[in-house]
Amino acid sequence: MASDHFSISISEKPVAEVEATFGPSDKHGADLRFHGVVRDSEDGRPILGIEYSHYDGMALAELEKIVHETGKSEIAHLVAIHHKIGFVKNGEASIVIRVQTPHSADAFRIGAEYLRQIKETVPIWKKPIFE
Amino acid sequence: MASDHFSISISEKPVAEVEATFGPSDKHGADLRFHGVVRDSEDGRPILGIEYSHYDGMALAELEKIVHETGKSEIAHLVAIHHKIGFVKNGEASIVIRVQTPHSADAFRIGAEYLRQIKETVPIWKKPIFE
Repeated sequence: MASDHFSISISEKPVAEVEATFGPSDKHGADLRFHGVVRDSEDGRPILGIEYSHYDGMALAELEKIVHETGKSEIAHLVAIHHKIGFVKNGEASIVIRVQTPHSADAFRIGAEYLRQIKETVPIWKKPIFE
Repeated sequence: MASDHFSISISEKPVAEVEATFGPSDKHGADLRFHGVVRDSEDGRPILGIEYSHYDGMALAELEKIVHETGKSEIAHLVAIHHKIGFVKNGEASIVIRVQTPHSADAFRIGAEYLRQIKETVPIWKKPIFE
């Protein structure tokens, strides 16, 4: 799903595969990417990875709402977000949030705000897969 | 220059070349990268790129001071910073700041703080190269 200022997706595609389609940032001086990465342990126990599931349709609708509202409330910016669902092995990213802005401080603030809202409202669940 | 918690450099190496040596992030769930990218215009005039120069030695010493002090004042994190000097063409990055932390909100705060301090104190100058 994409508009002039955003591109969002939730699917089984690996984050790296979606990122490979991202263009350069010659219009905006600040280009920030946040990756949420699966660690190699959970509560001290080694894990193989995490299985992500989502409330189909609802998760993307909620994400769309977030980018629409932040697009209105914040200064002009570009945002791209992809969340992988299904199995993500440790060391790999489950989510990427890319924010491009004219000024750098804005990119950090807006990126943090997207992540906070996603964690709070997008219905995606995780289950650690132990060794 | 590197220690257990940081890796910093200022040289003519392209940012992408330095980033290619970055490892994965399986110990830290939050992996943030900020790129400062050269835009295609400066004050409305198209540019080919920007020529960066630095106060040799002093710039790296200042950067080292920043990572040492932030290493003490902030929660435990990993940081990698590279600033390219010489010519950087538009659409390419002149700087990358990577911050890895256990918790995501910290990565955004610490990354923003590094950039703020670098802009304020590291002696690197830029000259736009017009078409």
